[in-house]
Amino acid sequence: MSEVLALEHATLIDGTGADPVTDATIVIADGKFTAAGPGDSVEVPADAQIRDVTGAYVIPGLMDANIHLVSARTPDTLLEYEGRYDDLAYEAAELALKYGLTTVFDTWGPAAPLIAARDGINAGKRTGSRFFCAGNIIGLNGPLSQDFFKSGLTFEPATVDRINQIWEVGCGSNLIQLTIDGIGEAVAKYIDDTGVDFIKYAASDHRSEGFLLFSEQAQKRIVDVCHEKGLLVQAHTTSVESLRMEVEAGNDLLQHPDHTGKTPIPDKLMAEIVEKQLPCMTLMATERYMEWMNSTRPDRAKGKQISQQNDKTFIERGARVLCTTDAFAYGQRVKNHAGFRPGILEDVVPDMPTQIGSGHFLWIKAAWEMGLAPMEVLRSSSAYIAQAYGKGDLYGTVTPGKAADLVVLDADPLAAPENYRKIRDVIKDGVVIDRSALGVNRLLADDPGDYAA
Amino acid sequence: MSEVLALEHATLIDGTGADPVTDATIVIADGKFTAAGPGDSVEVPADAQIRDVTGAYVIPGLMDANIHLVSARTPDTLLEYEGRYDDLAYEAAELALKYGLTTVFDTWGPAAPLIAARDGINAGKRTGSRFFCAGNIIGLNGPLSQDFFKSGLTFEPATVDRINQIWEVGCGSNLIQLTIDGIGEAVAKYIDDTGVDFIKYAASDHRSEGFLLFSEQAQKRIVDVCHEKGLLVQAHTTSVESLRMEVEAGNDLLQHPDHTGKTPIPDKLMAEIVEKQLPCMTLMATERYMEWMNSTRPDRAKGKQISQQNDKTFIERGARVLCTTDAFAYGQRVKNHAGFRPGILEDVVPDMPTQIGSGHFLWIKAAWEMGLAPMEVLRSSSAYIAQAYGKGDLYGTVTPGKAADLVVLDADPLAAPENYRKIRDVIKDGVVIDRSALGVNRLLADDPGDYAA
Amino acid sequence: MSEVLALEHATLIDGTGADPVTDATIVIADGKFTAAGPGDSVEVPADAQIRDVTGAYVIPGLMDANIHLVSARTPDTLLEYEGRYDDLAYEAAELALKYGLTTVFDTWGPAAPLIAARDGINAGKRTGSRFFCAGNIIGLNGPLSQDFFKSGLTFEPATVDRINQIWEVGCGSNLIQLTIDGIGEAVAKYIDDTGVDFIKYAASDHRSEGFLLFSEQAQKRIVDVCHEKGLLVQAHTTSVESLRMEVEAGNDLLQHPDHTGKTPIPDKLMAEIVEKQLPCMTLMATERYMEWMNSTRPDRAKGKQISQQNDKTFIERGARVLCTTDAFAYGQRVKNHAGFRPGILEDVVPDMPTQIGSGHFLWIKAAWEMGLAPMEVLRSSSAYIAQAYGKGDLYGTVTPGKAADLVVLDADPLAAPENYRKIRDVIKDGVVIDRSALGVNRLLADDPGDYAA
Amino acid sequence: MSEVLALEHATLIDGTGADPVTDATIVIADGKFTAAGPGDSVEVPADAQIRDVTGAYVIPGLMDANIHLVSARTPDTLLEYEGRYDDLAYEAAELALKYGLTTVFDTWGPAAPLIAARDGINAGKRTGSRFFCAGNIIGLNGPLSQDFFKSGLTFEPATVDRINQIWEVGCGSNLIQLTIDGIGEAVAKYIDDTGVDFIKYAASDHRSEGFLLFSEQAQKRIVDVCHEKGLLVQAHTTSVESLRMEVEAGNDLLQHPDHTGKTPIPDKLMAEIVEKQLPCMTLMATERYMEWMNSTRPDRAKGKQISQQNDKTFIERGARVLCTTDAFAYGQRVKNHAGFRPGILEDVVPDMPTQIGSGHFLWIKAAWEMGLAPMEVLRSSSAYIAQAYGKGDLYGTVTPGKAADLVVLDADPLAAPENYRKIRDVIKDGVVIDRSALGVNRLLADDPGDYAA
Repeated sequence: MSEVLALEHATLIDGTGADPVTDATIVIADGKFTAAGPGDSVEVPADAQIRDVTGAYVIPGLMDANIHLVSARTPDTLLEYEGRYDDLAYEAAELALKYGLTTVFDTWGPAAPLIAARDGINAGKRTGSRFFCAGNIIGLNGPLSQDFFKSGLTFEPATVDRINQIWEVGCGSNLIQLTIDGIGEAVAKYIDDTGVDFIKYAASDHRSEGFLLFSEQAQKRIVDVCHEKGLLVQAHTTSVESLRMEVEAGNDLLQHPDHTGKTPIPDKLMAEIVEKQLPCMTLMATERYMEWMNSTRPDRAKGKQISQQNDKTFIERGARVLCTTDAFAYGQRVKNHAGFRPGILEDVVPDMPTQIGSGHFLWIKAAWEMGLAPMEVLRSSSAYIAQAYGKGDLYGTVTPGKAADLVVLDADPLAAPENYRKIRDVIKDGVVIDRSALGVNRLLADDPGDYAA
Repeated sequence: MSEVLALEHATLIDGTGADPVTDATIVIADGKFTAAGPGDSVEVPADAQIRDVTGAYVIPGLMDANIHLVSARTPDTLLEYEGRYDDLAYEAAELALKYGLTTVFDTWGPAAPLIAARDGINAGKRTGSRFFCAGNIIGLNGPLSQDFFKSGLTFEPATVDRINQIWEVGCGSNLIQLTIDGIGEAVAKYIDDTGVDFIKYAASDHRSEGFLLFSEQAQKRIVDVCHEKGLLVQAHTTSVESLRMEVEAGNDLLQHPDHTGKTPIPDKLMAEIVEKQLPCMTLMATERYMEWMNSTRPDRAKGKQISQQNDKTFIERGARVLCTTDAFAYGQRVKNHAGFRPGILEDVVPDMPTQIGSGHFLWIKAAWEMGLAPMEVLRSSSAYIAQAYGKGDLYGTVTPGKAADLVVLDADPLAAPENYRKIRDVIKDGVVIDRSALGVNRLLADDPGDYAA
Repeated sequence: MSEVLALEHATLIDGTGADPVTDATIVIADGKFTAAGPGDSVEVPADAQIRDVTGAYVIPGLMDANIHLVSARTPDTLLEYEGRYDDLAYEAAELALKYGLTTVFDTWGPAAPLIAARDGINAGKRTGSRFFCAGNIIGLNGPLSQDFFKSGLTFEPATVDRINQIWEVGCGSNLIQLTIDGIGEAVAKYIDDTGVDFIKYAASDHRSEGFLLFSEQAQKRIVDVCHEKGLLVQAHTTSVESLRMEVEAGNDLLQHPDHTGKTPIPDKLMAEIVEKQLPCMTLMATERYMEWMNSTRPDRAKGKQISQQNDKTFIERGARVLCTTDAFAYGQRVKNHAGFRPGILEDVVPDMPTQIGSGHFLWIKAAWEMGLAPMEVLRSSSAYIAQAYGKGDLYGTVTPGKAADLVVLDADPLAAPENYRKIRDVIKDGVVIDRSALGVNRLLADDPGDYAA
Repeated sequence: MSEVLALEHATLIDGTGADPVTDATIVIADGKFTAAGPGDSVEVPADAQIRDVTGAYVIPGLMDANIHLVSARTPDTLLEYEGRYDDLAYEAAELALKYGLTTVFDTWGPAAPLIAARDGINAGKRTGSRFFCAGNIIGLNGPLSQDFFKSGLTFEPATVDRINQIWEVGCGSNLIQLTIDGIGEAVAKYIDDTGVDFIKYAASDHRSEGFLLFSEQAQKRIVDVCHEKGLLVQAHTTSVESLRMEVEAGNDLLQHPDHTGKTPIPDKLMAEIVEKQLPCMTLMATERYMEWMNSTRPDRAKGKQISQQNDKTFIERGARVLCTTDAFAYGQRVKNHAGFRPGILEDVVPDMPTQIGSGHFLWIKAAWEMGLAPMEVLRSSSAYIAQAYGKGDLYGTVTPGKAADLVVLDADPLAAPENYRKIRDVIKDGVVIDRSALGVNRLLADDPGDYAA
């Protein structure tokens, strides 16, 4: 981007926690912020293209700490798109960007096609959210396994193995049969073989029982291996014990620590998480969603109530929470499929949080309802995520020297959570995105706009 | 074929029941037999290409009254080859021809791709057995249904419907909910919509219980509709009642009438079948196969014992039996799949009769073991099938005016059943087939030669 | 009952279709009506016990043409009560009588324990509805089979066989593998072996597909055998074809002829049913039930909508309809069981018609809503049922010489359907039933009163 | 037992490791040994009943470190015998004693009925093996759960819960959702509530995956709680990691440490087990069994091969191995049941090791084949087990002061393993058992003698 761009007369909320600056000017050059502040204090280069955004609010580009871009969640889709999973990632990344997410973190998917799409977007081949990815959840089998399907499959074994291997790359449930040394070697090899950006492993299982996959020593070994390779690491946990083990093992981020099954987080563990300001990727739900869940799915609601209780405690005690949706780009064919484990995707569910492109708005709404201060809501959806993933010097705030990612809103995001939806413009790497061109030719997904209400 | 071909010094067994003619000459022109008889009585045109087959036996091209060319029997295969089912039919037809089958009758498959392959072979685009097809078994659902799979499927409903419709074309199990008029109209429409060569309907079900799909009056209506449309008709039966109903409804051929579940065919019904010389497409098994079945699958063996008992009675009483295998072109991926209903395909099964390309040799062996006279074995595998399907004037014997389909054997087929395997040459429509070029690039199937022992 | 009982000052609606008689007197001696008519025309014996029922309405004892007294519908119950199924029948018969049903017809159950309970009640050992029973539905397997369970069972095969045999007594699905002679002999033996009162066979299956079990000739044979043995016969049908076959086979009663799956009854068949006044045991549902079904189970609702349409046509054309509920005595443990085929028993279902003791009130309500004249509603729930089952000379109207079965209501049953629920007294065989003593010590069932609202 | 008994002219192998003593005399009084040694050195009381056992070999009563007396392994059995599980335990204990097992250790079963039977046998109400029991495997659900059944159950949820609770007593899979404190409290309560003799917990799961149930810290807590309560503790392990954790947690005994899934025990861990002489309850199989397994179940055989490899290493390095069978008293109804997890019980399996009454002979044969010295085989099947379970001062050797449990053999057990089967007499607590009276009226089990060949 050789052109210089200047936004003038904005109200700037830069994501650092600083007070909003009215009548602000933001200058962008070569894809980076070069200045941002009160209009009268910022010098605009003579050759700058001027964009008058009077009445608008400028915030950092939004982020999501946990999404899944390859939404190939039915056997049919997995077979139909075999060899083209990168296309699914591109589709999802487009839809994410359209709704203000300039950076997202993919915490489960097939490494090779994800990395192809990641690099394709970075190289400008396609337009979409910038993303970083973990590939498989270390210790889980691929999508055509009991970890993700409730019922038995009717496929040839060779088909199941072939598809699953695209995810597992040697780090599926076979790891639970190895020694600690064996586990460490497998994870190191996985990192080398795939080139992923960070690691997520399964401290407990993905079949909703709460079985553990790794001992405390094995978890420590995984964390050590990742750190030696220069990668941050997080764990999938679903019980108080697996959360405790994850924390003690030295994980850098906590993936849905609010999901502790039938037991709320004990005080001591909660205190440690707060004190260390460990990034908590919390799957908060809105009151409206919980009302529906409580009345129609009382059995499932129990675990979610514990989770919401944990979330409220996190906020009360000042834990570092991050906008986290577990979203993917789903559409009609996924919704009508009975076998996939995570479950309830019917159209009837209000405030369904797991659709890429609308889920983050619902997290913002939920955090707001739970009492997170408006400025913290904003930072939890931008700057804090960048910091947590070790990218704080590059992204997350409107600060000179950082990538020029921002969202221009028509209404004040500190006044009401729904104002985040009122997007006038999305700018990524200094480029004003043509949002109308995104998500036009869709493969699988509904338009997230449909889920925005 | 403008060239004229003459085979000389053959022992000719022409399929009419006439005694073998030694030192015979067979003359072929324009794809048809023009002369056949003792060498000294046949005039060979001057421009004829002479083929000296001294020591060999010439018989009519072999036929199979019941095979399935689209062997797409696993969900994986069905999805992987969607849009290319004709390729599967071509593969199977190649393998059939390679082993002497110049004409086969496909009694279950997807009409549109089958007809595409049928016409492609007839037009000379690909080399393979000439075939005629019925498309779906009227009243059964497609391959992704309980009629063919034991367990539930893990597909999106839309996928299941889409695949099944390629078979059903409006004539699946929906018919059992209609009135007789409604059934008749659906069948008429099916014939018009598909262009199939003959019709097979399900008198009883394909889930091995013996439920009936159609009442006597409904069956009569189906038969009438077919006859009005000029098509011959047969029914799938699995019980003495469904067989009786099929006969009374006026079917032209009887599909596996030997399969009557737990009750052998009653005398009166047997007598009627024999007297009317109704073509009986019998799924005879060899003694070796039965020994294996009896010792390893005693439960399944019971029904097969009844079937064999029926077959022996057919032969004793002089019923018109036809070589019938129910074969398809299977390979490793099918054998390792648990879900498909018909069942036992493991490598361990001796004399497994359902592989295209070797199954007909096993039928011949079984019929021989049961006492069918050698000359009748030959005619049951050629001329009788052509007659039963209304093609007796075109195919089935080495008779001037008929299509020049024949097999040249190195040993006497009237001396031992295994001599049918000793194929020197296959000629179809007067063309000497390059057998070494058949089945070279295979998609799914094993080489039937592997099953020939 | 040596005592003589006289009810005075009643409004009598005697079930013959005659106009109500105000200030009527009904005299009962030896369990039978000896007089009934205007108070001034009836002579009351001097020794009669007088019962002044001023303000009340006296109607014949109510009847249900299709119930199931042995409500052993979960595997647990079947095992827990093995050897004591008669106790379950007694429980259900008590609850039926408590709510006005003096005679019911059991159309599916285990013959031996049912007959034990039938005879026990008749002998005065226990108090309950008088009942007649068919035992098994000829052609269906027992309760631990796919005919009644959706999923596979986890039992030892010997257990499954042992339980199922209590129902089947040689007439399960094995019949579909027999010849017509074989079927006829099995049914004859069943009648001799069990001593049931009437026969019900499966013209179509009980797995909601609509497969046929018997050919037209086989059905005729079953009907003939029953008639030779002096028994009336009915068939279970679920499609227009099976209904047509049942009618043509000469059945005496039609079991749920309104259930014709996806196709309404064709005009010609409807006309025949009406003309012959064949008793139609219709499973009518109330508008309230249908509203719930339509909105929450749209897929299931389709078939039920066809059924309701058939019912309305029956009424419009003057067919002979009978109060029919398919009810059994269910309670909490049944409602929470996923495996049993018939389905939706949750507490949330309004106007659930299949609970013994309340289902008949809902049939009355439904028939009323559909336009059946009030007097016909009454006769369809009493006299017509007795006639249809060949018991018209013994039961069904308040007529001298018949069994003294009646219900005393506090409100006019011809004025509103809910008035049937306002029971003051139930009299059976001339005995005033102590309703408060019925259903006190319950085994499985909820109190039907709970379902009355 | 007030009588005094003396065995004379025996060859005594007392289980201490001492050389056999020929022409030995053993004196028993009040159920205990009072003397044992060379005939010329032992004084026989004048009132002693003399038993001349010339030619026979006297060894300590045999023991099995892991059996399951309540063999209620099918849903049918569990329901049919509900309330009478103690009868099943009595049956199994009878059969065990009949074949020389004077003491056995029950490592999985329902605590309450087991304890009733344990106390009943100790009180002399019934004759059978003396036994000690653990009740449930802490952390696993009851027998009607996925831990023990492969497929879903068709029961009412209340039935499943009721049966499972008899096993779980608050210590099922609910524990994996608790904190370490919560787990410790639950185990302490379990011990207090049940009165079991020792504790077994699940370090890894019972669904053959190798999931962990408890973290290292949680395992330590469980061990500590047990030790505080005075109980020995062992863990169920199925992987190298769970075995390592078990050892580090301080377990007193190791339950099937040879079962480490796909990875043999690493050297370091093996060395530690050997050095500490931790009792290894090894499930050794004979060569004949392995041949069958390798040829017919190649997939399952893989894990068993690793297990056998571990066993051989144990023996080579001098680990302390114990006779362990995992046996229960099974019969025909169990063998024909598809759902139960552990699996292969068909009659065709040679040397099937899991039948109570014959399994221990097969362990002896297997250990012998693997090279365990004959004297060690004997001690592993008697004295070592008593020591490992903390009962060495009471049982396990023919030593004055200990309980007079012994087996009189007709052939030398140090000469050939099959000689253990040649039982002349079994004496328990000084009483000569009438073996012909044991197992006469059987409930479920086959006679183990049938499996002895």
